[in-house]
Amino acid sequence: MTQRVQTVWEDVEFVVGYKTYVELIRPYLTHQKIVATGMRQEIDRCREAIRLASEGHKVAVISSGDAGVYGMAGILIECLEQEGLLNMPLEIIPGITAATAAASLLGAPLMHDFAVISLSDLLTPWEVIEKRIRLAAEGDFIITVYNPKSQGRTKHIETLREIVLQHRPPQTPVGLVREALRGNESSVEITNLEEFTKLPIDMLTTVIIGNSQTRIIGKYMVTPRGYVL
Amino acid sequence: MTQRVQTVWEDVEFVVGYKTYVELIRPYLTHQKIVATGMRQEIDRCREAIRLASEGHKVAVISSGDAGVYGMAGILIECLEQEGLLNMPLEIIPGITAATAAASLLGAPLMHDFAVISLSDLLTPWEVIEKRIRLAAEGDFIITVYNPKSQGRTKHIETLREIVLQHRPPQTPVGLVREALRGNESSVEITNLEEFTKLPIDMLTTVIIGNSQTRIIGKYMVTPRGYVL
Repeated sequence: MTQRVQTVWEDVEFVVGYKTYVELIRPYLTHQKIVATGMRQEIDRCREAIRLASEGHKVAVISSGDAGVYGMAGILIECLEQEGLLNMPLEIIPGITAATAAASLLGAPLMHDFAVISLSDLLTPWEVIEKRIRLAAEGDFIITVYNPKSQGRTKHIETLREIVLQHRPPQTPVGLVREALRGNESSVEITNLEEFTKLPIDMLTTVIIGNSQTRIIGKYMVTPRGYVL
Repeated sequence: MTQRVQTVWEDVEFVVGYKTYVELIRPYLTHQKIVATGMRQEIDRCREAIRLASEGHKVAVISSGDAGVYGMAGILIECLEQEGLLNMPLEIIPGITAATAAASLLGAPLMHDFAVISLSDLLTPWEVIEKRIRLAAEGDFIITVYNPKSQGRTKHIETLREIVLQHRPPQTPVGLVREALRGNESSVEITNLEEFTKLPIDMLTTVIIGNSQTRIIGKYMVTPRGYVL
């Protein structure tokens, strides 16, 4: 939680969010009322938040990580547009997104150019995702993977591994972080491109695949920026 | 500043950093002593921090944004390795990196897959950077540009514009944010791929180039995630 969130928190009357994320924030609630909805009800959440704000209430719509990275910020603005309420006061407060939270627990894998790719094909055709993986691998970007695997979608991460292996050696370091800085204990594993899909991976895991320069240094995964020591 | 920084701040005895960043943090100093060095003295800074920590002091090495994104985290671990001190206690605390800070001021441009590319060729050959720009443009990644321009390096951002124009229409939204959430007033401009290099851009500017779906919605720049409203 950033200082900016702490500053506005006292004024918030309603917290609107996915029920799992509302649980994460529960220890910080004082007088705020909760509006929690289930998974995939993003649009309902926005409409309810806008309705409450239209009545004059101060409303916080929450995301995990950063609301601006695969989070609620975009759909909220789209809903405001649809309802003709684009002039409604809105502040988007950035948070620590999973890529940088995970990186901080792994060491320093994101010291160089990187790509962020979600493997969720609910809203994006798989062909688009696959093309991006191929180009990011070819460009030697460090690759940060969001939503790597769900119960109904287990093959995509294997396909990603095969594509990246066409461009990088099997020993390329790969970091896996589960529940990065979410309050619970995070689990952190450093492995390699050959092996990483043998380890447990789920929707709460962030996967960071090193580039050609990434090294394992002691317990850390580091992509050197290029300084000569 | 995140809650985690606030928690450890009281224990910090020395703050080591680039002098410009030390100035940004000066309002938060209480008892902490400052070790400020000039630009490009990253290695000296790390060695001094390690020396102080070896003497038993609690030392904070600071970066702007997130120390894990083109920041001090990597070189610090490399210095620890060189000095045989990898077991020294080290906590890397993530911050809000310029990409997501800028995004929050523009609206919601990073709702979909994105690439982060630095145009600084001090430590990276320009050919590598150019290749990454081309592949990111081809992959329809939203492109976030760090270090877009310095006094001695003004052409790279023009080259980037020309490459991206081969893959995206001139009207593609582009956001420019100067001093994103640094404490001073940030300047925010939303323009397009055709025009953006006519606006003032310097080393403190973050440039976000939309993908094929990015739209300007009122005063916001938004990349829809794909929800059907």
